[in-house]
Amino acid sequence: MTDPKLLFAGVEMGGTKCVCLLATGPDDIRDEVRIPTTTPVETLAAIEAVLARWQATHGFEAIGVASFGPLELDPASPLYGTLVNTPKPGWTGANLLAGLKVFGVPLGLDTDVNGAALAERQWGGAQGLDSFTYVTVGTGIGVGSVVRGRTVRGLGHSEAGHLRIPRLEGRSWPGACPFHGDCVEGLASGPAIQAQAGVPAWELSSADPIWEEVVEALGALLHNLVLTTAPRRILIGGGVVAGQPRLLPRLRQALVESLNGYGVAPTIAADIDSFVAEPALGTSAGPLGAVALAQAAAARKDRPI
Amino acid sequence: MTDPKLLFAGVEMGGTKCVCLLATGPDDIRDEVRIPTTTPVETLAAIEAVLARWQATHGFEAIGVASFGPLELDPASPLYGTLVNTPKPGWTGANLLAGLKVFGVPLGLDTDVNGAALAERQWGGAQGLDSFTYVTVGTGIGVGSVVRGRTVRGLGHSEAGHLRIPRLEGRSWPGACPFHGDCVEGLASGPAIQAQAGVPAWELSSADPIWEEVVEALGALLHNLVLTTAPRRILIGGGVVAGQPRLLPRLRQALVESLNGYGVAPTIAADIDSFVAEPALGTSAGPLGAVALAQAAAARKDRPI
Repeated sequence: MTDPKLLFAGVEMGGTKCVCLLATGPDDIRDEVRIPTTTPVETLAAIEAVLARWQATHGFEAIGVASFGPLELDPASPLYGTLVNTPKPGWTGANLLAGLKVFGVPLGLDTDVNGAALAERQWGGAQGLDSFTYVTVGTGIGVGSVVRGRTVRGLGHSEAGHLRIPRLEGRSWPGACPFHGDCVEGLASGPAIQAQAGVPAWELSSADPIWEEVVEALGALLHNLVLTTAPRRILIGGGVVAGQPRLLPRLRQALVESLNGYGVAPTIAADIDSFVAEPALGTSAGPLGAVALAQAAAARKDRPI
Repeated sequence: MTDPKLLFAGVEMGGTKCVCLLATGPDDIRDEVRIPTTTPVETLAAIEAVLARWQATHGFEAIGVASFGPLELDPASPLYGTLVNTPKPGWTGANLLAGLKVFGVPLGLDTDVNGAALAERQWGGAQGLDSFTYVTVGTGIGVGSVVRGRTVRGLGHSEAGHLRIPRLEGRSWPGACPFHGDCVEGLASGPAIQAQAGVPAWELSSADPIWEEVVEALGALLHNLVLTTAPRRILIGGGVVAGQPRLLPRLRQALVESLNGYGVAPTIAADIDSFVAEPALGTSAGPLGAVALAQAAAARKDRPI
């Protein structure tokens, strides 16, 4: 266990803003600074200025960065710490860690959703679980996965929002994903729902037939996550889920029906309200994920590279 | 590294036969015994007799069991080591490890495909890789996954043969999976192909339109594996792949087209023949997987429970 009094610096890099947190944990946040995400040079310099001030005034044990992606996470790669092939203009090739070496502390880095998953494990809805999944359905669909205690990484990281899944019979709307059309994100993200409905997701009644398609897509995502990474729980939140209270119960039912008794399905069905649950940390999971990454880096004594 | 002269006992439990191997590795197999899979009592007693003879004559450091499933793999569960909810008649509840405690050596246990993946990592086509996937397409479709050096386990283990995937436009054959109909296994396993075609897969010409559906289904499986467990390579073999030489190149093309440039796709496309490759150990991967599990158990000094 980490000493509960030690301070850590977390930086959540988001597409529109970055949140910097100085904290020992969720109940002891000493400072929080929000910085708009503009150009890499401007944004990273502003973050470094915040960290320099914190180091001078409070000190911290380590820095964790939880970022949008895709990210190069292989420490053996010369591109470690850079954004690769990202749709966000100007950010491909930006190195998120290079400017942080000067602080001389361990640096942790992972995707925003892997970080959020670690925060839920440490302080939220996945405490005590070695294998579980965190899903957020909002502007995009992000999936963070922990398998046997470690976030999933290899050639890249989870991008399971872009899984190929079956369509409901008779539905032919082509989907909104610029890469895959009707992948999960292309059908069930907030912008996809709005593109098909013509109004924002939160304006749709729970009886709108678009929700059938959203439930089908997200249900297939949950089915495929159960059978690939063997989670003990799936935490699912984000704006689309939070904005439509009937969605979560329907997703639970869709998963049970889709698994149809196979393998671990009876165990899941017996406790479905606990198996598919909302995250406990809400919108704090992102920045707290960066703090969790800092703690993990300090525990591993990662060199400040 | 394991001392290359140490002997290990491996038991691959298959649906029709079990293969017991006494070996230091693939180039030094001292004995191999095949036992038909009948009832648990009869089959497990025959395996234990082989192991007892080996212990008396040669000795071994550890025993590894690589088995068909579904298996309870959680050491904290009272059912650890038993087959759960398996379609194989008579085997649900059979404990594969209970009778092995008497040998007083570490016991390793995992699924047949996770074991095969470890064997490919140790001696075959995945050497040096921390994250990769092993797929076999035959009587069923089995998927073994290694993430950051560990086989995927949690609530159960990978059952990714049963992923939900899109259908080709205009195809409506309902699929052969008794649980999910047109999941990957329901469309692309050997029995599924035969059920749809009326003849065995190896009798179909490479121009038969059924292959379009098989390529679509397996291509979607590969796409979904890339985006969930982030493999650095996917080894894919089994009777269906080995029996149709045009299939592997078509799967490579299908994966590149399906990913469509997203995320790590350019890296995969640049080296696709290496990224999607045949396993190196062929049909030996199964029993050698059990030997690899024994080695891993010895290295961890698992208690013989």
